[in-house]
Amino acid sequence: MENQDIIYGKNSVLEALIAGNREINKILISKNIHSDTKINKIKELAQANGVIFQFVAKEKFQPFAEFNHQGIIAQISPIKYMELEEFIQGKNHVNSSLVILDGVEDSHNLGAIIRTCVCAGVDGIIIPSRRNVQVNSIVEKTSAGAINHIPIIKVNSLVNAIQTLKDNNWWIIATDASAKDNYYDVKYDDMNFAIIMGAEHAGVSKSLLKASDFIVKIPMQNSFNSLNVSNALSAIIFETLRQKLKKK
Amino acid sequence: MENQDIIYGKNSVLEALIAGNREINKILISKNIHSDTKINKIKELAQANGVIFQFVAKEKFQPFAEFNHQGIIAQISPIKYMELEEFIQGKNHVNSSLVILDGVEDSHNLGAIIRTCVCAGVDGIIIPSRRNVQVNSIVEKTSAGAINHIPIIKVNSLVNAIQTLKDNNWWIIATDASAKDNYYDVKYDDMNFAIIMGAEHAGVSKSLLKASDFIVKIPMQNSFNSLNVSNALSAIIFETLRQKLKKK
Repeated sequence: MENQDIIYGKNSVLEALIAGNREINKILISKNIHSDTKINKIKELAQANGVIFQFVAKEKFQPFAEFNHQGIIAQISPIKYMELEEFIQGKNHVNSSLVILDGVEDSHNLGAIIRTCVCAGVDGIIIPSRRNVQVNSIVEKTSAGAINHIPIIKVNSLVNAIQTLKDNNWWIIATDASAKDNYYDVKYDDMNFAIIMGAEHAGVSKSLLKASDFIVKIPMQNSFNSLNVSNALSAIIFETLRQKLKKK
Repeated sequence: MENQDIIYGKNSVLEALIAGNREINKILISKNIHSDTKINKIKELAQANGVIFQFVAKEKFQPFAEFNHQGIIAQISPIKYMELEEFIQGKNHVNSSLVILDGVEDSHNLGAIIRTCVCAGVDGIIIPSRRNVQVNSIVEKTSAGAINHIPIIKVNSLVNAIQTLKDNNWWIIATDASAKDNYYDVKYDDMNFAIIMGAEHAGVSKSLLKASDFIVKIPMQNSFNSLNVSNALSAIIFETLRQKLKKK
């Protein structure tokens, strides 16, 4: 974790929340520190601004031992996230596409996914604020600059985000190994669609599968069934592009 | 570099070459050591067996400082490579596929490529013995076990390998950003084909482009034109699979 990725110490974290000019991925508070006025104020401001805070074992602070962190750090995003409403209302979407990540944990995977999405002309990427890697300096580096060419939309609830998209005439496509249809059986060239990619091991959550309009799989040619999530996305997203370009 | 990846010291390297039971990726010899009978014998046996050896600055030995290497180490492959002839003659190929790597340098990329190839049912991967990452323990690990499900064919000359393939009724498809045709314009469902993927920065070598039957590109939707090689391969290889499965 590079220095630029964190703000540490009660005063600095509190000031950052008051100023509201930094994009905070998450605030970590040691279980071993006692609450005081400042900590309470931090929790209050975080809650009011939808910033996630977690109480964690002091071992989590080991990577930051060189900093005088007083048992509290805020992880900072190198980019500004976009709001879903802002994305939806931002322009008149015609055959636009979104990628939704549900539990992608690896920074390098997120970086590769961002690159792939930019190359394939995806309009935005949605990540949840919990149980998914956030944009950090490793992601920024792995994306090889692509991070500056696509909006990253952070939401507190993927279920709500999907409902909002559906209410705005977007179609939701989830990937699941047990699906009947293959990903290329869907017609992608006449709708706004969002593709949900699941965690490397667990796949897409049941609640999201249930809310989806289509569930598709990549037909695996081997009992060895473990495609990296960025490679799986690449197969699907370039098929959607193929269909769009063929239609033109 | 893990310990299991190298054999070090004159005697051990010489014995490995005499026994011929280990797959050697490359022998590194320090420029600072004087030739003697053993070194000469090592060079002679390496040459006779097509094993690459390189004279390198002593700084290259820094990662192995803990070993008593005497200025010579052999990098060992965790897998046995296959010969191209053995692959071609091994079975009656009908609509089989190969992936040829030309200058892929990153171990993680090779691991991801191997996983993708296995999932998509590719029949083999060809790598050159020079200017391309070899199979090492990082590749093995990143491939998540996929390395055991696909033959890796190592050749000394990609140009010769391509000629051999063409002589045996295989078609060669190279990828190049400046190609006119898109990768999905080729009909992959009625031929044996090999797809050449180039180095992350330099692309496919001119000599290989010249020897190819088709040159194709992935249509990029952004001036940001930098798809990771494993993601590029995934887009193409799953399109070949889509065509094959659609035909069935």
